[in-house]
Amino acid sequence: MPIQLRWSDLDAYGHVNNAEMLRLLEEARIAAFWATDDPAAGATTAVLDSSPGADTLSLIARQEVEYLAPVPYWRAPLDVQLWVGRMGGASLEVCYEVCSPLGEEPAIVYTRAMTTIVLVDRASDRPRRISTREREAWSPYAGEPPAFRRSR
Amino acid sequence: MPIQLRWSDLDAYGHVNNAEMLRLLEEARIAAFWATDDPAAGATTAVLDSSPGADTLSLIARQEVEYLAPVPYWRAPLDVQLWVGRMGGASLEVCYEVCSPLGEEPAIVYTRAMTTIVLVDRASDRPRRISTREREAWSPYAGEPPAFRRSR
Amino acid sequence: MPIQLRWSDLDAYGHVNNAEMLRLLEEARIAAFWATDDPAAGATTAVLDSSPGADTLSLIARQEVEYLAPVPYWRAPLDVQLWVGRMGGASLEVCYEVCSPLGEEPAIVYTRAMTTIVLVDRASDRPRRISTREREAWSPYAGEPPAFRRSR
Amino acid sequence: MPIQLRWSDLDAYGHVNNAEMLRLLEEARIAAFWATDDPAAGATTAVLDSSPGADTLSLIARQEVEYLAPVPYWRAPLDVQLWVGRMGGASLEVCYEVCSPLGEEPAIVYTRAMTTIVLVDRASDRPRRISTREREAWSPYAGEPPAFRRSR
Repeated sequence: MPIQLRWSDLDAYGHVNNAEMLRLLEEARIAAFWATDDPAAGATTAVLDSSPGADTLSLIARQEVEYLAPVPYWRAPLDVQLWVGRMGGASLEVCYEVCSPLGEEPAIVYTRAMTTIVLVDRASDRPRRISTREREAWSPYAGEPPAFRRSR
Repeated sequence: MPIQLRWSDLDAYGHVNNAEMLRLLEEARIAAFWATDDPAAGATTAVLDSSPGADTLSLIARQEVEYLAPVPYWRAPLDVQLWVGRMGGASLEVCYEVCSPLGEEPAIVYTRAMTTIVLVDRASDRPRRISTREREAWSPYAGEPPAFRRSR
Repeated sequence: MPIQLRWSDLDAYGHVNNAEMLRLLEEARIAAFWATDDPAAGATTAVLDSSPGADTLSLIARQEVEYLAPVPYWRAPLDVQLWVGRMGGASLEVCYEVCSPLGEEPAIVYTRAMTTIVLVDRASDRPRRISTREREAWSPYAGEPPAFRRSR
Repeated sequence: MPIQLRWSDLDAYGHVNNAEMLRLLEEARIAAFWATDDPAAGATTAVLDSSPGADTLSLIARQEVEYLAPVPYWRAPLDVQLWVGRMGGASLEVCYEVCSPLGEEPAIVYTRAMTTIVLVDRASDRPRRISTREREAWSPYAGEPPAFRRSR
């Protein structure tokens, strides 16, 4: 999935700031998961209505991010690979590899990351189960967790 | 350590955004670790010169963050507890608990986090060992890693 | 009014980014104008309830900003002077000078700026008149507009 | 020029924050002015090398921004019109209208703005004259300043 940098994502070291990287992951999640009216979207993971007025809130419960190499400024969009890790009752893991723009050689994996999302029912303010429709939409994109180098 | 929120740290859900939380951790690290000319600083962890022209670059290699509760807007500074986890040859772990402002009851732990930092020699662009002076400055602040709820 | 920089306010040129400057102005406005429960605030400009659930929304209608000198990173808070310019029926001008930290010599005026704010009634979504209480609270802080160098 | 919003551009009021708007203008300037190796760019305004190592620094001297209507979240890119206002010896005005995405009806002009840029020679740290090549590249895009509603 192409994710466009902004020049202001760089910090005073001239690299994409480590906090800003989480905004890039956020943009990738939105592109992948948020429901869209676009008929071209076809069969898709985009079944989650996370708009402010929606019934479900998707809360970030955990982030794990490995920064393998500093990300310089690119005018072409970064190539963000995104897939689904473990699905629990009310939570799911979203996994990512953030890579140099498509077509650039050599291809570089800058960052590996995993986000744990909990679906929360806005009315009750409590976690709600992943629906059958959501599970079916996301299952084809399931995969192994990222190949993190370090671990606790 | 008191860390002041900005109103713009909130996102459209009205909570501190998960990416913005990493900026708060960054501010806490700077307050704790960056060398200062302030004589009031006394005996201190602040022995690391991370200014842009310095010999050492402290790179973020890994972030692990657990978001336990949404952070609302506070005008009083958040209370960020910061300590040192494992020290390796060229890397160290910085551990945090981000809490409600001091004096607020009940006290709330919003976030637990751990950052792995690698010290890089700017001239050679390669990791460099933690110096004896740094190790001595940081050792009194060593502690166990944060009590994360979830793990891989 | 002391306004604390964050290291991430710097951009890749190593100066506070021009957009980020508007966040600093926002923080200065909040410190000056937003109602507070703090009894130490005493007689004050802080009579405006701009909390998300409040009756009044203060919308930014216009910003005019002159950047006189690049702002480097300071650990001590910048000194932001803030006063009230012209008050209209439903709008007011907030004027600023953003200066180097108090006590630094020579003192530097980095930025002069003016924000036009319109008070909007949330229920009707239309501008509402400045109240007598607000006008009385703000009048002692009235002054001339900033001494801009350039103009249209 | 299409400029993509990020969800994090929204603030707690659910609209694009007034400071964040300046980042959108920055992205539009970069897309229009920064030199590119892309041969498809053809005859173009993109003759300014503003990369960190370049000879010229383009400093923001002044911003004037009118916010005509709050900008909601759009997944489709905003349509930013950009043209050149007055060119001085070492400075130029960049003018903008930030509009709803192309094809949306009714079209909305959200923001009008003007940025004064000063070209600074990095070696001498002093303003340098706009070159003939730059003047020729930018002249076809010259126009009247934005139709601001308010003025000093």
